Amino acid sequence: MNSLFALSALAAASIHPLADIQADALEDEVAWEILVDLTTQIGPRLGGTPAEARARAWSVERLNALGFSNVRVEEFTMPAWVRGDEQAWVLGDHSQELVVTALGNSGSTGPDGIEAEVVGYDSYAAFLAAPASEQRGKVVFIWHDMAPTQDGSSYSAFGGARFFGPAEASRRGAAAILVKSIGTDSDRLPHTGMTNFGDAAPIPAGALSVPDAGQLRRLLALGKPVTIRLLMTPAQIGPQTSGNVIAEVPGRDPEAKKVMVACHLDSWDNAPGVFDDGAGCAIVAAAAKRVMDMGQPERTIEIVWFGAEEVGIHGGRDFAARHDGKDYHVVAESDFGADRVWRVDTNLGEDRKAEADRLRAALAPLGIVPGSYTSAGGADIGPLMQEGAPGLSLRQDGTRYFDLHHTANDTLDKVDRDQFQQNVAAWTTMLMVMAGPVE
Amino acid sequence: MNSLFALSALAAASIHPLADIQADALEDEVAWEILVDLTTQIGPRLGGTPAEARARAWSVERLNALGFSNVRVEEFTMPAWVRGDEQAWVLGDHSQELVVTALGNSGSTGPDGIEAEVVGYDSYAAFLAAPASEQRGKVVFIWHDMAPTQDGSSYSAFGGARFFGPAEASRRGAAAILVKSIGTDSDRLPHTGMTNFGDAAPIPAGALSVPDAGQLRRLLALGKPVTIRLLMTPAQIGPQTSGNVIAEVPGRDPEAKKVMVACHLDSWDNAPGVFDDGAGCAIVAAAAKRVMDMGQPERTIEIVWFGAEEVGIHGGRDFAARHDGKDYHVVAESDFGADRVWRVDTNLGEDRKAEADRLRAALAPLGIVPGSYTSAGGADIGPLMQEGAPGLSLRQDGTRYFDLHHTANDTLDKVDRDQFQQNVAAWTTMLMVMAGPVE
Repeated sequence: MNSLFALSALAAASIHPLADIQADALEDEVAWEILVDLTTQIGPRLGGTPAEARARAWSVERLNALGFSNVRVEEFTMPAWVRGDEQAWVLGDHSQELVVTALGNSGSTGPDGIEAEVVGYDSYAAFLAAPASEQRGKVVFIWHDMAPTQDGSSYSAFGGARFFGPAEASRRGAAAILVKSIGTDSDRLPHTGMTNFGDAAPIPAGALSVPDAGQLRRLLALGKPVTIRLLMTPAQIGPQTSGNVIAEVPGRDPEAKKVMVACHLDSWDNAPGVFDDGAGCAIVAAAAKRVMDMGQPERTIEIVWFGAEEVGIHGGRDFAARHDGKDYHVVAESDFGADRVWRVDTNLGEDRKAEADRLRAALAPLGIVPGSYTSAGGADIGPLMQEGAPGLSLRQDGTRYFDLHHTANDTLDKVDRDQFQQNVAAWTTMLMVMAGPVE
Repeated sequence: MNSLFALSALAAASIHPLADIQADALEDEVAWEILVDLTTQIGPRLGGTPAEARARAWSVERLNALGFSNVRVEEFTMPAWVRGDEQAWVLGDHSQELVVTALGNSGSTGPDGIEAEVVGYDSYAAFLAAPASEQRGKVVFIWHDMAPTQDGSSYSAFGGARFFGPAEASRRGAAAILVKSIGTDSDRLPHTGMTNFGDAAPIPAGALSVPDAGQLRRLLALGKPVTIRLLMTPAQIGPQTSGNVIAEVPGRDPEAKKVMVACHLDSWDNAPGVFDDGAGCAIVAAAAKRVMDMGQPERTIEIVWFGAEEVGIHGGRDFAARHDGKDYHVVAESDFGADRVWRVDTNLGEDRKAEADRLRAALAPLGIVPGSYTSAGGADIGPLMQEGAPGLSLRQDGTRYFDLHHTANDTLDKVDRDQFQQNVAAWTTMLMVMAGPVE
């Protein structure tokens, strides 16, 4: 089936022409209302905290009010980590404070802090290549040269210092590690994010803001020893309750495999989580509501607002443990900000290429380019996809995502309404294609 | 004398054609080196603190190293205020932290903080128009609608909430006051700055970051009482030492009135003070050095890096008390960032219009437009001008100045080198015109 025929078939399957559906969705107000209310009334909502519990209660109320069915919470427990004090000072002739934040799972300096000399590296690779002997007892500082990319690929390419640096620095006997924030902004707002120590002993691990990392690098370039005082007192507080919030648009065929649209409800603790990921929750719910308001789709649409993603993808893992990936026709997650969808990737399997082509053709009027047939994903849907759930990704423009990601600056004023609503149009379109005819 | 003739006269007075002088200055490296070294090696340097004293010692060394004459410090004492802890929390159903910073001269909440209901206003005028009865015992919150302006005029137009709001709120019996930062950014970095209580009792007075002010405004719009917990523990610590750093390029005629080029050396405590005002110090010194390196001007050029400007223009007042404004041919200050000079204003007096015209003509090749003949100024040179010193202003583009002003974001990475060096060219040009022929 060629794409033009596919589009005709789609239009024929609905009393609503696709162009009208998209035009209406571009003017969507529901997603904005969800986003404003969640991020204003709840604010930051770290996984496993009372704020996240308030967010779940708010979500159940809102999803019911929007008219969805079978709204419920699946609770689970998870190990929780909370931030403490955090402060860094350069000592001596160039005495000054540096803006630092602890990485998730960071060890504590204890309430008295530590003082140690800094040993700096221009990249994660340079840190790895250097001998442990020069790092032992020191504060390791790792710079990087991350630049913005539309597809966000610079995050994994340059994120090693945060992802793996702390564990490696611990194994090498470093007293602590400070990384340049894994970000592309120039604001004095450090980027937090998880790190994992594996079998290494946790050491204090922090991120300096990008300007502060530049300042420390210049101080090191003066060629004299730089001693830093570091105070970070985060703590592991043991198992806490989180949960996934689930809602449905029941399909006409209860035996048909479901379509899941997902996001994560939790945020980091330093911001109300607008780009990460209130926007995703607002987008997928608004799109599902648009379909629901047009009639009943063939397949059940399942909306999942996952809990405790930031701090270890706990919601995604719990969901996959309770449910079967093979029950899904497709799963998709919106978790890359509020800017426009620019590419569609699918991983539906070889035998569903025609369906992927229908989706590509339907999304083209929104300026979305076709991407991969064999690659899709999302943090929370990853475990389900490992169980065999087909996936697709509506890839968002990430050019400015890592300006805001995991910083205090992830706030409502950053949203470009036009781009945000293009997401609603894209997800509505996707559901019209994937959930079957709406009647 | 018409302008074209004036330019010919200027060129004739020097072996260096003006176009060459400007082209060279646009490639200046000295200003950048001063700016990098001051703001990296010293960092923040609040008036009256040990950091400002370090900055003075650094300045004397650097100004001597650059070859200036008669480098010296004029010390003075000043009342000093220092920041303490600062934290704000919305309590109750929408519990969340708001990013706040104390305004200079703010009172303290005491170490236990205060809790009070918030009463919000959309403008300073609305606050003034409302009855004191609704403000008594409350935390007054004042919004504003400041937008960027090239000439910076929105600062005074919308700054009333910070300048006058705290004293007025105190007189009305408010428990505290929070203003939306007097700024044009959307970063969660509040703008500090002085406020003056006059004869009113100091109350806790803070600025919320622009996004946090938006968040509080949305919470108030929900229509239910909003209670806030506020902790701010700044303190007045009594008289401290500050000082003005002075250097000279001796003129050929020691009896001729001098030309002063000025800036302020101190910064706020939350940033290394690049736009405010390390850039100004770097620009005026680099320009004076360019003139010095070309020969000897007729008039002595006096470089003054004022102390303790931010916290009350103490350096400017002390200087005017010791020196006579009538000894100056002209005084000028660079204190509006690092972006390009776009307009020249003079206040030389009616009888020196031809000289003002020569200056205008000489600056035109740098894209600088002519402004006022009767208005010029600068915080630190203000007291001298009140004593009769003629002044001029090389007005910088302020479009993004109030994104950074008095915030932690006032860092080196924000500088646009091309615009910064255009300043050096403008100030060099100004000195070539005003300090008389260089021989």
